[in-house]
Amino acid sequence: MSSSTGSSSIVSRLSTRDDAFEQRLNALLDWEGVSDSAVQARVDEILADVKQRGDAAVIEATNRFDRLSVENMQALRLIPDQLEQAFNNLPAEQREALARAAERIRVYHERQKPSSWQYEEADGTVLGQQVTALDRAGIYVPGGKAAYPSSVLMNAIPARVAGVREIVMVVPTPDGVVNELVLAAAHLAGVDHVFTIGGAQAIAAMAYGTETVPRVDKIVGPGNIYVATAKRAVFGQVGIDMIAGPSEILVVSDGQTDPDWLAMDLFSQAEHDEDAQAILVSWDSAHLDAVAEAIERLLPTLEREGIVRESLSRRGALVLCQDKAEAVTLINRIAPEHLELSVDAPDTWLNDVRHAGAIFMGRYTAEVLGDYCAGPNHVLPTSGTARFSSPLGVYDFQKRSSIINCSREGASALGKVASVLARGESLTAHARSAEYRIQE
Amino acid sequence: MSSSTGSSSIVSRLSTRDDAFEQRLNALLDWEGVSDSAVQARVDEILADVKQRGDAAVIEATNRFDRLSVENMQALRLIPDQLEQAFNNLPAEQREALARAAERIRVYHERQKPSSWQYEEADGTVLGQQVTALDRAGIYVPGGKAAYPSSVLMNAIPARVAGVREIVMVVPTPDGVVNELVLAAAHLAGVDHVFTIGGAQAIAAMAYGTETVPRVDKIVGPGNIYVATAKRAVFGQVGIDMIAGPSEILVVSDGQTDPDWLAMDLFSQAEHDEDAQAILVSWDSAHLDAVAEAIERLLPTLEREGIVRESLSRRGALVLCQDKAEAVTLINRIAPEHLELSVDAPDTWLNDVRHAGAIFMGRYTAEVLGDYCAGPNHVLPTSGTARFSSPLGVYDFQKRSSIINCSREGASALGKVASVLARGESLTAHARSAEYRIQE
Repeated sequence: MSSSTGSSSIVSRLSTRDDAFEQRLNALLDWEGVSDSAVQARVDEILADVKQRGDAAVIEATNRFDRLSVENMQALRLIPDQLEQAFNNLPAEQREALARAAERIRVYHERQKPSSWQYEEADGTVLGQQVTALDRAGIYVPGGKAAYPSSVLMNAIPARVAGVREIVMVVPTPDGVVNELVLAAAHLAGVDHVFTIGGAQAIAAMAYGTETVPRVDKIVGPGNIYVATAKRAVFGQVGIDMIAGPSEILVVSDGQTDPDWLAMDLFSQAEHDEDAQAILVSWDSAHLDAVAEAIERLLPTLEREGIVRESLSRRGALVLCQDKAEAVTLINRIAPEHLELSVDAPDTWLNDVRHAGAIFMGRYTAEVLGDYCAGPNHVLPTSGTARFSSPLGVYDFQKRSSIINCSREGASALGKVASVLARGESLTAHARSAEYRIQE
Repeated sequence: MSSSTGSSSIVSRLSTRDDAFEQRLNALLDWEGVSDSAVQARVDEILADVKQRGDAAVIEATNRFDRLSVENMQALRLIPDQLEQAFNNLPAEQREALARAAERIRVYHERQKPSSWQYEEADGTVLGQQVTALDRAGIYVPGGKAAYPSSVLMNAIPARVAGVREIVMVVPTPDGVVNELVLAAAHLAGVDHVFTIGGAQAIAAMAYGTETVPRVDKIVGPGNIYVATAKRAVFGQVGIDMIAGPSEILVVSDGQTDPDWLAMDLFSQAEHDEDAQAILVSWDSAHLDAVAEAIERLLPTLEREGIVRESLSRRGALVLCQDKAEAVTLINRIAPEHLELSVDAPDTWLNDVRHAGAIFMGRYTAEVLGDYCAGPNHVLPTSGTARFSSPLGVYDFQKRSSIINCSREGASALGKVASVLARGESLTAHARSAEYRIQE
């Protein structure tokens, strides 16, 4: 148990001192979300079919892939009353917890709202940016085992806060199984239209519009490989949020957090699915041993033991590093979706953390609190994409227009500069358009 | 000439009263930026080759597509001295104009910088968002006839303002032709590395990194269909800005602007290339006649007459509408890249404009002023994508991390809510992780 790279435990043990550390870390993090050409071809076919035949194509694909036998879109549409009823039918405890979470998410996202701004120059020229909301947003909610009501809140509430006029939600119901909690969350979040469709056909319906499904301006929300491939294909036609990979957490512990807590924090990530990734980093070797022991002991008590065991053994790791500085290097190398700083004085780490989707600070801040109800969004950049992308937010449902209002004098001065540069680029109509505005 | 839908002129005349107006407008706006499967296959091949063989593949592709015969990457790399020399060699007038433009762009983009923020709740829990810059940005600059120094400024300066540590620029030099103005702009904007490569091979080099080209976190800048296809393919591996279509302008005139000015404003858009789009909307029929006359008269005086004639006849239009309200409807329907409000009191229009990349207000504010030196970015959403996207900005070179720091009491209260919701989703390890934080 004291060997830092022992392999007797469920989860791999790595040390930054190992010769092959970089290589092992790279192998562990490697994730190819790229769809093969067979998936690509199938998705292209579905997209083209829905674009051309609309509702009819959506109905056929839905009957086929979700094993239904509906005859029209009305059978794939939920009315507001059904959503409200689902909410009212919830046990009081769930209804209150959902409402509490929704309220906290709303309050947090209100703080994200950017404002339009402008400034005036000495000659009266005004420059600025106007912020406006999207007209219509589309939210993809996965069906089956990954149908999470919390995701409905996390996707729809920022859209509502942003001022989006209309929110369309799609959620497949394989074999006709409806998730009442998902409908209740849709009611609470103020979703306008719900269609029980999924896969590439749902993405196509929202991107192109059909007789029944309104065309949206942006599609957000995670899905399987068909959904991800379809989102990539329609990008440009509509906006998309991101191509999500499996969920992951990097926990850094200073050795002072209860090993059972840390084991459970890792489990909570690993129980999502077999591809999920949970990594713990510490410079305290005995502490890592203790967490490994807690994992062995607690694993058999989990409802989703099988999934957790596979996820941890395939993609999990306990990593021994030398010190805090090395832990920081690992954080920025991995750019984790979730970063748990289970350390004393976590705020002293903040300046050094350059890349992370969400930072959970201190021993009490388990990731799960952010997953459901702390307020910040749980839709986060995965697979190292925190290097360049952000949590889903109000800003994803808004866009900006530049404002340029030149005074007569301002236009004259700028016209002279623009004329020189335009002629330098051999764009002489540009130059002459500028020169008309020059006052002699 | 008085017929509102006459076809004797170079540019189509449309009226919103025509029965077929919607259909004609749709046909006019239609733009399929989708690459065919042959382009896709060729790009996939190049991407895979560069990913596997690095520099060697980049050199081969560059020699082939840009008709060069270099033997190593050193021959495809420009050193800072070369950039500085290019800047110093410019005629003083150009050097000053470029410096003036750069300074105005910098000042405007400084205003765009978002700040990190956080707030504390009654129980001591702290929530917020931390804003950080990308480590490394990649800028694609087209070669050949579309090599614009102004685009170098517009892409690199926001990255610099955002705090990006390293800026990599690629610009192809077909047949070895180097654009000295582009190099001068790179010097001025503070670009760190320049490689004279282009096409899908340049996108691959920046997305995956090679022995010589550093891997970047995000790629921005326009390019041809191979570049656009490659950007779409590497999206997720790196961030990308957008898939740009042809440039377009929508001018709205109240009939009081000099028709010659408006004709030249339309020309300045149309001269970009044959796919560029220039549309004028007015409720004053005689005014549209006067602009049509100015177009006929001025067109033969243009250096790029051929391109402008083709662009205007294929994709241009003078549209007669009924009133201001109808003009606003058209604006929001088209969601133009550039909107010129050549009207009295343009600020009274602003609240009604929901979708536009940049809004040029008043008769003096020709688009060309914004193209070069007003300050706002000229990289703007095309082909109606202003419905969901924004001008390139500082925000494109930054990302956010959520901050969650729960107090002991805060974690306890949130733990109870999270536990209920997690159990509702059958995620019991989540629930138990939350429950460890509940104080009894």
